[in-house]
Amino acid sequence: AVDARRLLGRIRELGAVGRDSEGRLIRLAASDTDRQGRDLLVGWLRQAGLDIAIDRVGNIFGIWQSPDDAGQAPLLVGSHIDTVIDAGIYDGCYGVLAGLEVIETLKASGFSPSRPVAVAAFTNEEGVRYTPDMMGSLVHAGGICVDTVLAALGTDGSVLGQELARIGYAGDTEPGFLKPHAYLELHIEQGPVLEREGVPIGAVENLQGISWQRITIDGVANHAGTTPMSMRSDAGHAAARVITHLHDRAKGSNTPMVATVGTMRFEPNAINVIPSQAVFTVDLRDPDEQRLQAEEAALAAYLDQLAAAEGVTISVERLARFEPVIFDIRIVERIEAAAKNRGLGVKRMTSGAGHDAQMMARITPAAMIFVPSAGGISHNPREHTEDAELVAGANILLDVVTDLAK
Amino acid sequence: AVDARRLLGRIRELGAVGRDSEGRLIRLAASDTDRQGRDLLVGWLRQAGLDIAIDRVGNIFGIWQSPDDAGQAPLLVGSHIDTVIDAGIYDGCYGVLAGLEVIETLKASGFSPSRPVAVAAFTNEEGVRYTPDMMGSLVHAGGICVDTVLAALGTDGSVLGQELARIGYAGDTEPGFLKPHAYLELHIEQGPVLEREGVPIGAVENLQGISWQRITIDGVANHAGTTPMSMRSDAGHAAARVITHLHDRAKGSNTPMVATVGTMRFEPNAINVIPSQAVFTVDLRDPDEQRLQAEEAALAAYLDQLAAAEGVTISVERLARFEPVIFDIRIVERIEAAAKNRGLGVKRMTSGAGHDAQMMARITPAAMIFVPSAGGISHNPREHTEDAELVAGANILLDVVTDLAK
Ligand SMILES: NC(=O)NCCC(=O)O
Ligand SMILES: NC(=O)NCCC(=O)O
Repeated sequence: AVDARRLLGRIRELGAVGRDSEGRLIRLAASDTDRQGRDLLVGWLRQAGLDIAIDRVGNIFGIWQSPDDAGQAPLLVGSHIDTVIDAGIYDGCYGVLAGLEVIETLKASGFSPSRPVAVAAFTNEEGVRYTPDMMGSLVHAGGICVDTVLAALGTDGSVLGQELARIGYAGDTEPGFLKPHAYLELHIEQGPVLEREGVPIGAVENLQGISWQRITIDGVANHAGTTPMSMRSDAGHAAARVITHLHDRAKGSNTPMVATVGTMRFEPNAINVIPSQAVFTVDLRDPDEQRLQAEEAALAAYLDQLAAAEGVTISVERLARFEPVIFDIRIVERIEAAAKNRGLGVKRMTSGAGHDAQMMARITPAAMIFVPSAGGISHNPREHTEDAELVAGANILLDVVTDLAK
Repeated sequence: AVDARRLLGRIRELGAVGRDSEGRLIRLAASDTDRQGRDLLVGWLRQAGLDIAIDRVGNIFGIWQSPDDAGQAPLLVGSHIDTVIDAGIYDGCYGVLAGLEVIETLKASGFSPSRPVAVAAFTNEEGVRYTPDMMGSLVHAGGICVDTVLAALGTDGSVLGQELARIGYAGDTEPGFLKPHAYLELHIEQGPVLEREGVPIGAVENLQGISWQRITIDGVANHAGTTPMSMRSDAGHAAARVITHLHDRAKGSNTPMVATVGTMRFEPNAINVIPSQAVFTVDLRDPDEQRLQAEEAALAAYLDQLAAAEGVTISVERLARFEPVIFDIRIVERIEAAAKNRGLGVKRMTSGAGHDAQMMARITPAAMIFVPSAGGISHNPREHTEDAELVAGANILLDVVTDLAK
């Protein structure tokens, strides 16, 4: 079994890195606080005696090469340590630190793997500062050019490549250098299913499709007091219509489709000026690709109709688009078997969130293990998983890694 | 007649003060650019040989004392030179500079007024940086304590009193020192009525009521991908509902009521996080006080219902509340007579915008003169009034001032 105290202690220690003056955890990709988190992690990887590689997109790898495994494709375990704004401490970090914990446990036990076992922390999984999300693993999997993403512009106007160089994590290893035998990712569920059903382990068999768009609506600034309602081109009002439209469609459908507008900006943003511009993001997800395409088309049609009705112009930019992913059934079955072996309930399930595993699945058999999230809360400082549940998940990871690397 | 070239030249010169790097005019109250505008104005007042007074709230007065007027209450003409964000050049400045122009014209003509004639530039009429709007004239009229408004917090976290001191316009004259015989304000209409009807002069007989509120909606941040629609407390979506509700009520009513949400902020404002908070302003206006109260009550009831339906908490803060104002009918008639004398069409009308005149009306007979706004556009860089219309308005002001001060 893993060393529960060491694992939980590290989760807390890393969770303390990147607090702002109000105590909020903000460790956005390639920021100063991300650097602090990376430094802490790399220190632990070194202490564990792992070989360290950092690639050009800043992905960090800790590789356990053992004498017997020459030339074998490594088994890779991973996740990310970047966070959203005002985040919880488990999202991503749990998987990376449990991966390290599993390797240290196996090393200490005298286990001799038939192949290298490595742990990865991928750059910018969250996609909050730079899009697309799951960026580091997408680059690793060859889904996008490293030079393209290094030129990505952040929400703060920064350029990813410059920021990685500034924080000392623009490595020189070429992305994709490590060709895994298989990929495993342990993560908190971030949703309500496991808790609601009282099941401690999720064997994640698929992951829903993700569509991210940025919409810009241009209207006409005018005086809030003198302009009759019938003569307005109110960009803010048109944006509000998009939000209520998306919400009503998603809520009214009997599918698992979800729709979110998480960001919003009005221009000139003055109390007595009709907004001339509204810029906002749309996050649409559905496990079914056909339905996701139909929703995107329905949104586009609605925007056309709205532009005509409201006298505004609307432009749309794609920020990320990933099709649903089906994970490797053999690994899913091994996860189920490991849980049953330990007498733990287990449930096959769909991931609502995006994860690095979905990118790695393009190049290697991959699957994920979930543990419950209290109240289904994530991307929120109240994100919580009980210690015993965290340890149980890490032990399932240990068992599956042992199984795949023996 | 006024000196058209001097007046138009000054409007353009002042309109060039406060341009940002993108060429946008932003001269918010008590900012650095407001200081530059004030310095230019005070220079012109001095050149015109006027006595200058600056009161504790930063209101600027240029006073023409002539030998014969000892002890008489002054006739006051005024408006403001602060602007909104990305403003036009006429709003407010036109009235101040035309007031100065009228005084200079009368002085040069050898006219000997029976009372002092003064021109005022009131602080923070726009209300964009600090609320309430029409702040300087409200203080002058005794409607709010000077110390209260000096403590006002700006949208940028600044404090008005500190900013006035910093830019050198925290005067030592006590606000309200000047008790006018009457108050006149010349302004662009900022709305579509005069242009649509082809009438060059508006004799403004009343001004609608204004209700400004700031609404804060608190929901629960959560993951955009994993949180089912039925389990969300989405503050951004609730805010959008308020916008569409207000818009539909105002547009659907057959009253002149207008409703605007000009500012909006989401927290944490991240693409894959359901907003935990939305903060926005509501600007409601109606010429009828009963109806305005009924609209405020309807909004409050809607917010209660929305909070329950969406699982959010909603708090409301009043930023400004002014009842409709009826101007002095005798002055309105003098404006009409002056227009007819010059062979100009004139129309009695309602002001949709708030103006310093509405505050001065609390302490002295007051009225306003409007000139057309092209396309009804204001609070927008495309705000425009033809030179000939500007000059015609200034000549009507000249005639009414002459009439009231002879
Ligand atoms: N796991 C996670 O929160 N990933 C961020 C990308 C997403 O929005 O799903
Ligand atoms: N005239 C003018 O734009 N005043 C600003 C206050 C308001 O919003 O009406």
